[in-house]
Amino acid sequence: MTPIAQDRFALVLGAQQLESSFEQAIFRMDITPEHTNILGGVHGGVIFSLADFAFASACNAGEGSFIGLQAEIRYMAAAKDKQLIATAKRVGGTRKFAHYEVMVTDGLGNALALFTSTAYRVA
Amino acid sequence: MTPIAQDRFALVLGAQQLESSFEQAIFRMDITPEHTNILGGVHGGVIFSLADFAFASACNAGEGSFIGLQAEIRYMAAAKDKQLIATAKRVGGTRKFAHYEVMVTDGLGNALALFTSTAYRVA
Amino acid sequence: MTPIAQDRFALVLGAQQLESSFEQAIFRMDITPEHTNILGGVHGGVIFSLADFAFASACNAGEGSFIGLQAEIRYMAAAKDKQLIATAKRVGGTRKFAHYEVMVTDGLGNALALFTSTAYRVA
Amino acid sequence: MTPIAQDRFALVLGAQQLESSFEQAIFRMDITPEHTNILGGVHGGVIFSLADFAFASACNAGEGSFIGLQAEIRYMAAAKDKQLIATAKRVGGTRKFAHYEVMVTDGLGNALALFTSTAYRVA
Repeated sequence: MTPIAQDRFALVLGAQQLESSFEQAIFRMDITPEHTNILGGVHGGVIFSLADFAFASACNAGEGSFIGLQAEIRYMAAAKDKQLIATAKRVGGTRKFAHYEVMVTDGLGNALALFTSTAYRVA
Repeated sequence: MTPIAQDRFALVLGAQQLESSFEQAIFRMDITPEHTNILGGVHGGVIFSLADFAFASACNAGEGSFIGLQAEIRYMAAAKDKQLIATAKRVGGTRKFAHYEVMVTDGLGNALALFTSTAYRVA
Repeated sequence: MTPIAQDRFALVLGAQQLESSFEQAIFRMDITPEHTNILGGVHGGVIFSLADFAFASACNAGEGSFIGLQAEIRYMAAAKDKQLIATAKRVGGTRKFAHYEVMVTDGLGNALALFTSTAYRVA
Repeated sequence: MTPIAQDRFALVLGAQQLESSFEQAIFRMDITPEHTNILGGVHGGVIFSLADFAFASACNAGEGSFIGLQAEIRYMAAAKDKQLIATAKRVGGTRKFAHYEVMVTDGLGNALALFTSTAYRVA
């Protein structure tokens, strides 16, 4: 497990690491009443956080240490079950920067949110 | 208080609403060990979530009901104390869309992250 | 050809449509001295515009009429030849919204920029 | 004038620099038929490019040389006249990174688009 998978905030959300390499990382979690808003939807911050765990885990699974610089998320659909799965894939980079795309789906494979992000390498 | 301020996820993070109108909303929280990663930094998902509470609270403080469509965050500096304050301001919109900018600072007023977002109105 | 491919701004940039459907559109152009800045790099606005043509062409190749709401671009590498190719793929959506991802490469297939965007349907 | 203001792509678009410092830069241009699409709207790439000139000009008006890493734009309203004005303001940064926000208005002061971006310093 990467250090990120052991972070207390990952525990708070109930996020589990399924896989992690510099090229790809996968995290999952169960949606609980704590994660939903008054309209019954999952909080944007919950979906973002799961995607961010996958991103942070992947970019730190290589030889360098990377810190997130920017990230964006677009919400595409509501979950049809009680699971969230975030799959981060590296889409490009240089020695200094790493760029990722994270697709968040529910347990049925429905695309819920697309997250893209950039991290930079610290010395 | 808006419903968002009473959501269980806001309680989980310890986020409190200081102010909320369609034009501006302010949320604050204390940084605890639960929110920090192995490097000592605050998780991106925590900062994003606080900004998202302020955004969601503001856009639902008017007459319509709005749902977040897209948001992005750029991290600018690390907190110098144990407080996070997110101030959402409406920057534009139409009958259907509302656009916000949320500045996140620490308790000393240092700019930590800039979040911008768009919500759409549901019938 | 879609109307976008015939727009005068596409002609100004020398952008040509290679393919266009609601699911995928491809545009290409040659990099000329007009498109480069003093450092020899291609202007961000040129790369963005090509990606935007592919996005706009794709989302209007279906049955509805769509207008761009938000877009973001992250620059990953410099072109190694004098060609830019933008491939827009639909990543999700509802009746009202369409979400796309556009990868911009050079003629050798090097990933130069990742663009993601959202459009909404007009009546 | 900064080098950016003299770039051929700025000339192609008819963009003029009104002001430029590390803290703030302003560019303006007239909207011509070349810049509009079949629906009569200004191309997203044109609005983005003007904002990008202001951003690039500002971040290179200080002591370092900066290159754009990421930018995003959200479109808020249509122009009510034939002018576009982009005002870039520095919102934060470190020795290595500079973060800007660019508001694009028409000549009447209506907010048309909000652009935010990050550049990194090259040695």
